[in-house]
Amino acid sequence: MGEEWAANALAKKNAQTAAIPEEWVITPPPADRLNVLGVPRECGLLSEKELEITELRNVDALLEKLASGEWTSVEVTTAFLKRAIIAQQVVNCLTEIFIDKALAWAASLDKQLKETGRPVGPLHGLPISLKDQFCIEGLDCCMGYVAWCNKPSEKNAVLVDVLLSAGAVPFIRTNVPQTLMWPEAYNVVFGRTVNPANRTLTCGGSSGGEGALVAMDGSPLGVGTDIGGSVRIPSGLNGLFGLRPSFNRFPYQGAVNSGYGQEAVPSVLGPITSSVSGLKAFTKAVLSQEPWLYDPLCVRKPWDEEAYRLKEHGEGKKMCFGFMWDDGVVLPTPPVKRALEIAKAALEAAGHEVIEWKGIHHYELGQTVVSIFNADGNDNCADVCEVSGEPLLDTMVPEFPLAEQDERPMTAHDGDGPKGLFGEYVRLSTYELWQLQWRKRAMQKDYLDLWVGTKGETTGRKMDAIIMPMAPHPAPPHGKYSYVGYTMVWNVLDNPAAIFPVTTVDLELDVPVEKHEFRYAEDKKVYELYTSPEVFKDAPVNLQLVGMKLEEEAVIGMVEMVSKIVAEYTK
Amino acid sequence: MGEEWAANALAKKNAQTAAIPEEWVITPPPADRLNVLGVPRECGLLSEKELEITELRNVDALLEKLASGEWTSVEVTTAFLKRAIIAQQVVNCLTEIFIDKALAWAASLDKQLKETGRPVGPLHGLPISLKDQFCIEGLDCCMGYVAWCNKPSEKNAVLVDVLLSAGAVPFIRTNVPQTLMWPEAYNVVFGRTVNPANRTLTCGGSSGGEGALVAMDGSPLGVGTDIGGSVRIPSGLNGLFGLRPSFNRFPYQGAVNSGYGQEAVPSVLGPITSSVSGLKAFTKAVLSQEPWLYDPLCVRKPWDEEAYRLKEHGEGKKMCFGFMWDDGVVLPTPPVKRALEIAKAALEAAGHEVIEWKGIHHYELGQTVVSIFNADGNDNCADVCEVSGEPLLDTMVPEFPLAEQDERPMTAHDGDGPKGLFGEYVRLSTYELWQLQWRKRAMQKDYLDLWVGTKGETTGRKMDAIIMPMAPHPAPPHGKYSYVGYTMVWNVLDNPAAIFPVTTVDLELDVPVEKHEFRYAEDKKVYELYTSPEVFKDAPVNLQLVGMKLEEEAVIGMVEMVSKIVAEYTK
Repeated sequence: MGEEWAANALAKKNAQTAAIPEEWVITPPPADRLNVLGVPRECGLLSEKELEITELRNVDALLEKLASGEWTSVEVTTAFLKRAIIAQQVVNCLTEIFIDKALAWAASLDKQLKETGRPVGPLHGLPISLKDQFCIEGLDCCMGYVAWCNKPSEKNAVLVDVLLSAGAVPFIRTNVPQTLMWPEAYNVVFGRTVNPANRTLTCGGSSGGEGALVAMDGSPLGVGTDIGGSVRIPSGLNGLFGLRPSFNRFPYQGAVNSGYGQEAVPSVLGPITSSVSGLKAFTKAVLSQEPWLYDPLCVRKPWDEEAYRLKEHGEGKKMCFGFMWDDGVVLPTPPVKRALEIAKAALEAAGHEVIEWKGIHHYELGQTVVSIFNADGNDNCADVCEVSGEPLLDTMVPEFPLAEQDERPMTAHDGDGPKGLFGEYVRLSTYELWQLQWRKRAMQKDYLDLWVGTKGETTGRKMDAIIMPMAPHPAPPHGKYSYVGYTMVWNVLDNPAAIFPVTTVDLELDVPVEKHEFRYAEDKKVYELYTSPEVFKDAPVNLQLVGMKLEEEAVIGMVEMVSKIVAEYTK
Repeated sequence: MGEEWAANALAKKNAQTAAIPEEWVITPPPADRLNVLGVPRECGLLSEKELEITELRNVDALLEKLASGEWTSVEVTTAFLKRAIIAQQVVNCLTEIFIDKALAWAASLDKQLKETGRPVGPLHGLPISLKDQFCIEGLDCCMGYVAWCNKPSEKNAVLVDVLLSAGAVPFIRTNVPQTLMWPEAYNVVFGRTVNPANRTLTCGGSSGGEGALVAMDGSPLGVGTDIGGSVRIPSGLNGLFGLRPSFNRFPYQGAVNSGYGQEAVPSVLGPITSSVSGLKAFTKAVLSQEPWLYDPLCVRKPWDEEAYRLKEHGEGKKMCFGFMWDDGVVLPTPPVKRALEIAKAALEAAGHEVIEWKGIHHYELGQTVVSIFNADGNDNCADVCEVSGEPLLDTMVPEFPLAEQDERPMTAHDGDGPKGLFGEYVRLSTYELWQLQWRKRAMQKDYLDLWVGTKGETTGRKMDAIIMPMAPHPAPPHGKYSYVGYTMVWNVLDNPAAIFPVTTVDLELDVPVEKHEFRYAEDKKVYELYTSPEVFKDAPVNLQLVGMKLEEEAVIGMVEMVSKIVAEYTK
C-alpha cells in the first residue's frame, strides 16, 4: 500500500517535469546556493524584453501596456511562463503546468483586442497564477493529495470564470502543504517549495508556491487562500504584498479545500503580488464581475471608490495608526521589532499619529479557532489520505523521512494518530462547537468595542488601522514555523488585513536580545529560533495593516499610502 | 419542583398585569367574540386624536408629524401605549410593560426637538415595539422562560441603542413561544397570544406578539426575529408587512436567543408593520447608525438608494416575476392560491411579466436546516428549562394541559424527551454537522444558478423577484401550524423576503378542493386543515416577495410597488 501511493505520487511528479519544454530547462545553480533570486536573470533563458516585462513589478503599468496593445498577452504570458518554469527549477513552486491552454487564452485575448479595439475586461491579458485549489476544467487540481491526482476538474472554480471574464489569463498553478493547514508548503506529490531569498528557509504557506513564484517574478500576481494566514504568511516571508479580505468578499465557490462545511472561520481568497497596485487591480476587477451572481455566499458589495480614497479616514491626510508591538502571546524577534520602529518613524515623519494598541483576547481567540478547526477530528483530511494510503503528515520538518512517517499510524482515525500544526484533533459535538462559536462572537464584540473606543489625539476619530507584525519572525527554517497567532487572529475576528514589505534581516542590526519571561511554550520556541540570526540571512521582513470588517477598499488605500511612506523613508 | 416553576411564572404574570394602569383597564368583550380588531375603537378609552394617531398606518406620515412637532412624541407614544394595553386585554400580546421609561424617552425627544428645532434622528419620536429578545437595561427580558424572570438586563441590545440614537422610542415588548422555535406564541410565563382577526386562530410566531399587537394598531412598527419565518409568519397571518433581511444586515448583537452559537442559519431581525413605508423607514434608519460599529457580524453596507429605486430592475418600469404556485412539498390551500391569482392578474394588468418558478431542492433544504437546528440535541433550551423545572413544551396545542405535560419527561436530556416542531432532537458530531453545511452550500449554488439562468421574455434579464405563498394556509387554529417550508427555505438560502397583504379568506370563493396525491405527511395535514374553511373566518392572506441575497433595498422597493398594484387592483 505504501509503495502504491508513493509510486502514484512519483508518476504525477514525473508528468509535471515532462510538461516543461526542453528548451526551458536551465542548468541549476549549486544546491548550496541559498539566494536564488538572481537565477532568472543569470540563466540566460529570458530576452531583454522578457526581463523588462517580468521585472516591471507594477500591475497597473502592465495592464496599460496590455490594454493599449503595446505588449501582447501572448508575449507577456510567455515571459511569465518561462520565468515561472525557471523558478520551478530552483524553488519547486509549481503544480499544474498548462502552457498551451494559457497561451490559447492569451492569443484569444490578443485577437479580440485587435478586432474590437477594446480590452476584454479590466484585467485584459494579465497572466495570473493560482494556488492549487482553483479548479480549471480539464486539468487536475489535486491540492497535493495522491488520491486526487489524475482526476481532471469538471468545471472551473467561480474565481477562474470571473478572472477569464475580466480578461485575465490563468497561466500556472502553485504548490501547497498537504491539507493546507500548515504555514509551509510540502506535500508528498509535488514535494517542498523553498524560499528564493534563502533556500534553507520556508516560503511560508499554505499559499507557499505563490509566495515563492511571485518573489521570483514568475508571476505578476497570484491568488492564494487564507484561513489562518495562508495568503499573508507567504506574502510576508517573500517580501510581497498580500490581502486577506473579509469572509465572502471574493468568490470561493468551486475551489477544492480542506474542512468542507466548516463555516465558523471560513477560508477566503486573496491576491499575492510584488506590485502594490496589484491589490486594487485584482479587487476592483473581481468585484466588477458581480461575483455574488455565481457564489451564493458572496457579499453583494461593489467596489467602493470613496472608501478606497479614505473618505472615512480623513481623506488620508492625517491618520492615526494603532501599533501592536506584541500580541501578549509571542514576543516578536528583533528584525520584526525593527520593522515596526521603521514604520512608526516613517509615519510620524509624514505627519501621522501612532498610538499603542494591545488588543484583547489574543491568546483565547487563537485557542478557540484551533478547537474549531480540529473539531471534526480531521476526518475530512484523513478520509482523503486513506483513499490512497498516503500518510497524513504531522510535521513539515524535512528530517522526518517519509518512510519513517509511513510506519506510524496513518490517519487521525486512529486514536493516537498524527497531530496537526495545532496539536491533537479533538472531536467535538455540535453542542460543544456552538459553545465555542458563541464565545468567539463575544470576543469579537469585545474587540470591536475596544477599537471603536479609541480616539486619535490629532484626528479626533477612532484609529484608522492597526499596524503590527505579520509573524513574530522572518521566514524560519523548514519545519520551524509554529505560531500563526499574528495572522490567524484576523481570520477569527474577520478583519481585512494587508501585508507590505518593510526591510530585510540585517545581521548587524538585528542582534538577539536577552531572554524574557516566556508567557507560553510558543513564546520560548520563537525566542530560541532567533538565537542564531545568521540562519535568517536575506530574509524579508514585512508588516501587516488591519482594517475593519468589509473595509477592503480602505485597507488597500491605506497600504498603498503606508508602503509608499515607508519605502521613501528607508530609501 | 413543578409547583415552584408554576408559582414563579404566575408571579411574573401577575406583576405584568399590575403594570397596567387601572384607568386603562377595559371591559373585555365576551370570550366567544372571535374578531376583536374593533375593540380599541369600541372600548371608549381612546380619544379621537389617539384613534387618528394609531390608525394612520403610515410610518412616513407619522414621522413627518413628529419631526415637525405637529404631534409630540409623548402624545404619540401615549396613544400607542394605551392601544397596546387594550390589545393586551383581548389578545394577550405583551411581555414587559414599561410606561414610565417609554414616556421619559419620548419626553426627552420632545425637549430636544423644542430646544434645537431639529429631530434627534430619522425615527424621531416614533414608538417601536420589540419582541421579547431585545434587552433594555434594567428590564427583564425573559423570552417566556421562568428561569430568566426577575433578572434585569445589564445593558441594551445593540438594536435598542441604535433605535434610541435614531430617535425612536422603544415602548413595549411582545410575546413569543417558549424556545422561539414554534410558529405560534405560547409560553408558560405569559401564556398564549391569539389572532385578533379570529381569536380561535394563531397569531403566528415566533414574533407572534408583534403580529397581534401591530394588527390591533397597538404599535406602528415592531421588531421581530426570523430563523424559519418568525417575522414573516406573524406578518402574514395578521395582514401586515414584514421583512426578513439577509444574515447580519441588521445588528442582532446583545439580543437573547435560543441555539447560541449556531451560525449556519442564524436568526435575523426585521420589521413588522401595518405601513408599507415602515419597511424602508426602519431599514434606512438602522443602517444610518452604522450598526457594523457595534455588532461585529454586521455587514458594512449602507442604505443604497439606487438599489431601492430598482436600478438593477429596469427602474421598476417593466419587471418579470417568478411565481411559485407550489413548493413541491405542500400544496397551498384555496385562499392562498386565490391570492396568487390576484397578484398575477394585477401585475399583468400593470404591464409586468409573470413566469413560472419551481425552484429546486425545496424538500431537502427543509430537511437539512431541520437537522442543523436539532444538532445540539436542543441542549441549549433544555438547559434553561432545567434551571427552573418548567417543562420543555413539545406542542402548541392548547388541549394538552400543562399539568399533564409536567408528568412527562421534562427535557430533551432524556432519551425519549419531548420533540420539537421539527421532530426529534438528533445530536450530531461536528463532522456530521459540517457535511450538512457543505450540502446546504451546494444546494444554495444550484438555486442561485437556476435563478441567474432565468430570462424574462419582455425584460431580457433574469427574473426580478419571486412571488410565492408565505404559508400554504391562512392562520390555522392554535397548535395546528406545522409546515414552515415556504418561509424557512429563504433562511437557508439567505434571500431577503418581504410579506405583503393581498386578501382575506372568502368563504364563498375559497371552497375546499378535491384531494390530490399527497407528497408528504405535511401535505396531507395541510389539506385536511382546510376541509372546514369556516374555521378560517376573517383570516388575512398575504404573499411573499423574495429578492437576491443582500438586496434588501430592492426588495423594499419592489414590495412597495407590488402591494400598491395589488391594492389598486382589488379596490
